Amino acid sequence: MGIRSDAVSSARGDRPFDLAIRNIRLVNVLTREIYPADIGITGGQIASVLPAGVNPFSAEREIEGDGLWAAPGFIDGHVHNESSMCTPAAWAEVILPHGATSVVTDPHEIANVLGLRGVRYMLDASRDLPLRYFITAPSCVPSVPKLETSGAVFGEQEMREMLTWERVIAVGEAMDFIGLSNQSGTITSIVDAGQVAGVPIEGHGPGLTGCLLQAYLSAAGPRCSDHESLDSVNMLEKARTGTMVYARVSSFLDAARELAEAINNIPDPRMFGLCTDDLHPGFLLEKGHLDHGMRTLIAAGVDPLTVYQMASINVAGHYGLWGLGAIAPGWLADIVLLEDLEKVQVKHVITGGRIRVWEGQLMEPVRQPIAPLLENTVRIPAGLNRGDFTPRATQDGIRHFHAMDLSNVTDTRLTTVELMVENGQVKFPLPEGIALAAVLGRHGQAQAPSLSFITGFPIQQGVIASTVSHDSHNLVMIGRHPDDLLVAAKSLEQMGGGLVFVSQGNMIAKLPLPVAGLLSPLSLSEIATQETTLKTALTSYGLSPDSTAILLFMTLPVLPRVRLTDHGLVDVLVQQIIPLETV
Amino acid sequence: MGIRSDAVSSARGDRPFDLAIRNIRLVNVLTREIYPADIGITGGQIASVLPAGVNPFSAEREIEGDGLWAAPGFIDGHVHNESSMCTPAAWAEVILPHGATSVVTDPHEIANVLGLRGVRYMLDASRDLPLRYFITAPSCVPSVPKLETSGAVFGEQEMREMLTWERVIAVGEAMDFIGLSNQSGTITSIVDAGQVAGVPIEGHGPGLTGCLLQAYLSAAGPRCSDHESLDSVNMLEKARTGTMVYARVSSFLDAARELAEAINNIPDPRMFGLCTDDLHPGFLLEKGHLDHGMRTLIAAGVDPLTVYQMASINVAGHYGLWGLGAIAPGWLADIVLLEDLEKVQVKHVITGGRIRVWEGQLMEPVRQPIAPLLENTVRIPAGLNRGDFTPRATQDGIRHFHAMDLSNVTDTRLTTVELMVENGQVKFPLPEGIALAAVLGRHGQAQAPSLSFITGFPIQQGVIASTVSHDSHNLVMIGRHPDDLLVAAKSLEQMGGGLVFVSQGNMIAKLPLPVAGLLSPLSLSEIATQETTLKTALTSYGLSPDSTAILLFMTLPVLPRVRLTDHGLVDVLVQQIIPLETV
Repeated sequence: MGIRSDAVSSARGDRPFDLAIRNIRLVNVLTREIYPADIGITGGQIASVLPAGVNPFSAEREIEGDGLWAAPGFIDGHVHNESSMCTPAAWAEVILPHGATSVVTDPHEIANVLGLRGVRYMLDASRDLPLRYFITAPSCVPSVPKLETSGAVFGEQEMREMLTWERVIAVGEAMDFIGLSNQSGTITSIVDAGQVAGVPIEGHGPGLTGCLLQAYLSAAGPRCSDHESLDSVNMLEKARTGTMVYARVSSFLDAARELAEAINNIPDPRMFGLCTDDLHPGFLLEKGHLDHGMRTLIAAGVDPLTVYQMASINVAGHYGLWGLGAIAPGWLADIVLLEDLEKVQVKHVITGGRIRVWEGQLMEPVRQPIAPLLENTVRIPAGLNRGDFTPRATQDGIRHFHAMDLSNVTDTRLTTVELMVENGQVKFPLPEGIALAAVLGRHGQAQAPSLSFITGFPIQQGVIASTVSHDSHNLVMIGRHPDDLLVAAKSLEQMGGGLVFVSQGNMIAKLPLPVAGLLSPLSLSEIATQETTLKTALTSYGLSPDSTAILLFMTLPVLPRVRLTDHGLVDVLVQQIIPLETV
Repeated sequence: MGIRSDAVSSARGDRPFDLAIRNIRLVNVLTREIYPADIGITGGQIASVLPAGVNPFSAEREIEGDGLWAAPGFIDGHVHNESSMCTPAAWAEVILPHGATSVVTDPHEIANVLGLRGVRYMLDASRDLPLRYFITAPSCVPSVPKLETSGAVFGEQEMREMLTWERVIAVGEAMDFIGLSNQSGTITSIVDAGQVAGVPIEGHGPGLTGCLLQAYLSAAGPRCSDHESLDSVNMLEKARTGTMVYARVSSFLDAARELAEAINNIPDPRMFGLCTDDLHPGFLLEKGHLDHGMRTLIAAGVDPLTVYQMASINVAGHYGLWGLGAIAPGWLADIVLLEDLEKVQVKHVITGGRIRVWEGQLMEPVRQPIAPLLENTVRIPAGLNRGDFTPRATQDGIRHFHAMDLSNVTDTRLTTVELMVENGQVKFPLPEGIALAAVLGRHGQAQAPSLSFITGFPIQQGVIASTVSHDSHNLVMIGRHPDDLLVAAKSLEQMGGGLVFVSQGNMIAKLPLPVAGLLSPLSLSEIATQETTLKTALTSYGLSPDSTAILLFMTLPVLPRVRLTDHGLVDVLVQQIIPLETV
């Protein structure tokens, strides 16, 4: 008896199929054709795909096609599970009904908190899910070594180890594209470890073009991807030079026409794939997942068959995920049945030959795999007090301080503010229009929080604080008074992490994320409810409901032009720390 | 310093390229486009591919495009090196100037003679060649276990071992498609071993269609190929069901229009590839290799870009030969420069970044790698005598014997002949129109040769004999007199194998193949000269110059309807031995 004997017997007609799908409109992504077919499934694999009506064999269970289309299950080429704030199981519950049957995740956030244990946790927490959960090994932990403190530092050794683990199929996005293009730094030996292991290198080349792109790809080797392009010229350049180019659902929606132009301009779109990258709870609940990106692309004019190829065989081929990405005998039985091809309306979802979603509803709740319980990862200095959050100056009187202007959050500017200093301490309350920001090490660092003043951010009272802050995920806060900052820090420590809004010493709203300070153990809809409560509270205090978004990226010292890390205020362009007080 | 630092430095402009190709018409098989480009190569890899004129960087050596096209080096998806009668090095000398830069060989013939040692010999003899030589591990040794004796028997254990060897990238063609579709026999565990190892299974499904094809593919898994289809309906059916379909140069030439129809009828031809399978010395010298198949397809109406994809990226993708099959930064520098795209006129060939062929000529002779010397593999019983080649009968007088009619060699028929018997032995000379055939075990079997009479083969005198006889490669002969058969057998033993024509006790012509009785140590043109001499001799004795071709397949007990093996005359359809004398 061979491994596949049951399926083979069914195909021959010697035993019933486990499941047959009759008279379905088959979306054949291998040949770019749609035609009526009967699909037979046995033992988790597709055993037979014949023109409709040809196969007279019986099945334990049958689905009548009845005008539906069958497409291969959607594959998300690059995604950070952590952005959903859910555990893998809770995330699967949400994305599976949208047709996602495989995800290639980069557990980059939790790796920055917990190192290899974080990656292992995601592997354990994603075991035996009803979808296929692959991992790319994070390559840039931390993103910038000398300007912030993360919970872990990955080198070549860590990369080698992760690449031996089950379901780890690539080197995660090589964000340090400057280092790689110069063949300097840790990234070079990390990428080389991937090449020795024979796995793809997931790329990250925002705006990379010309000679620098060639250098980056020369270093990354023949299996490099990119999900950072939005303009069609850059996308075409990357596809032509052998890059697997992902259209990123989290960012292309407003640029779908541009993207459609790039795809339509290329006679063979095999180098194009689809990914979501970062989809937050609200997006997942309101718009969907890959399916939303697919219908957006189709509406923008891309041939539907191309879009279905981008969400299946093209990505599977890039990763060498043999058996995934098409509906054919001998392949794995991951199938999406659709009511509307162009609107990508998913009705039923099958993975591993089992019906997981029926009429849009999960057949059964997704069980949480037994994963190790994680300890509280929010470890801040003991005995923290108000003074730690109070900026000091060398002299009393009116003094000048550096400040970060957040008017444009994607391009923050360095500015200065005039503040009163008494007894060596800045006097509170601050003048209107100025706030206080702090980043407090929460990976066991012993030092006091780094502080900075903020302009261009309309907070009137209270403090918003978060343990989600890219990429090191230290505890970040913006508020009006040191007392509130202290309360927020202690609250987050007690909660094990998350987001809070504190005012006048009171916890107004919270979103607990006790798993590594990044994830909630709740379901996505429960998380969304908490998020709504938080947003309502923010609104009632005069803040934008999305105010906390600023906390996510205010700490990332690879984004222009000034950012605050636990080391201090960073001048990103020269990669140096700026003192709080001006000279 | 990273593995690829030199290439990266060149791409950045910090050091000269080893080689630059300027202003070439780039055949981009990833996007199906042709446009002017500059290619920079350093350290054996492609370091830069930019639009022509953009890159101002210098190079150690430059090639001016000057109206030429650059295509990725051609990849032969499935080929038996042994059919060329050359060693790997001598074969490389011939096919490299035709643009072949990678070959995926199935050393099936030598495996039937020498078992694992034969496969290892081909690995050793192909080390460090100027082209990339991959091996698929033979899966059907012997082709039919009980009806002939081969030099080796492969089971699951042998397959597992071969799959651990360098450059062994797949399970070789699973010819026992009946066994596999029934999940019976050795082939099932052999294919399963391949699936556990995660390699493709090279298929072999002549005429397979409908449910049986589904069963075969269900068993072979998602990475199955096929090179046995010629009609467009069967090819399309296979491509649609996830099979990598090779157009086989050795057989499609007369059916190129049919093949073109299949390929043109499919919106996405990614499941089509190219292979040569069996090309004999004359074909290689007169027509060429993959290039000949490519120009034939283009002349038959297939889009040239599709044809170049079939000879490169499509095959590389099937095998997961990352870095091969396209011209892009980070990929391996295997490039063909062509004078004429549609006529596939190869001018220069580069592999591993080095110019190997210039103006159609090898830059230097291909060195024979150091491979173990093989002993004489023609081991026939000692003390063989005339009587061993003389058919016997139970009674004297006119007797009836079974005979094999060779009028149609692809569909031989069982017939009977009347012969005179004296003293228990058939009387010689035989009546006109009747010949004597023998298959003599040459793998150390102790038994006497099996004998049969032949009709429909116009041999007047002498004997043609060969140690090349599919698939077991025992010593096969057709002649008019037992004395000549004895001389031919002893001559071949002394030569270590090959082809001979003997008449009246004299060696008239010979083609020595002392390497496993299959290959010559000479160059292809020297072999061709010997072959011409042999053919001339055959002609002068009233035989067709291609008479020896009958010896190759007269012994293969999977071809209809009667074949002669060392076990005797085989009724192929019932898979039983037929006695020499009729009852």
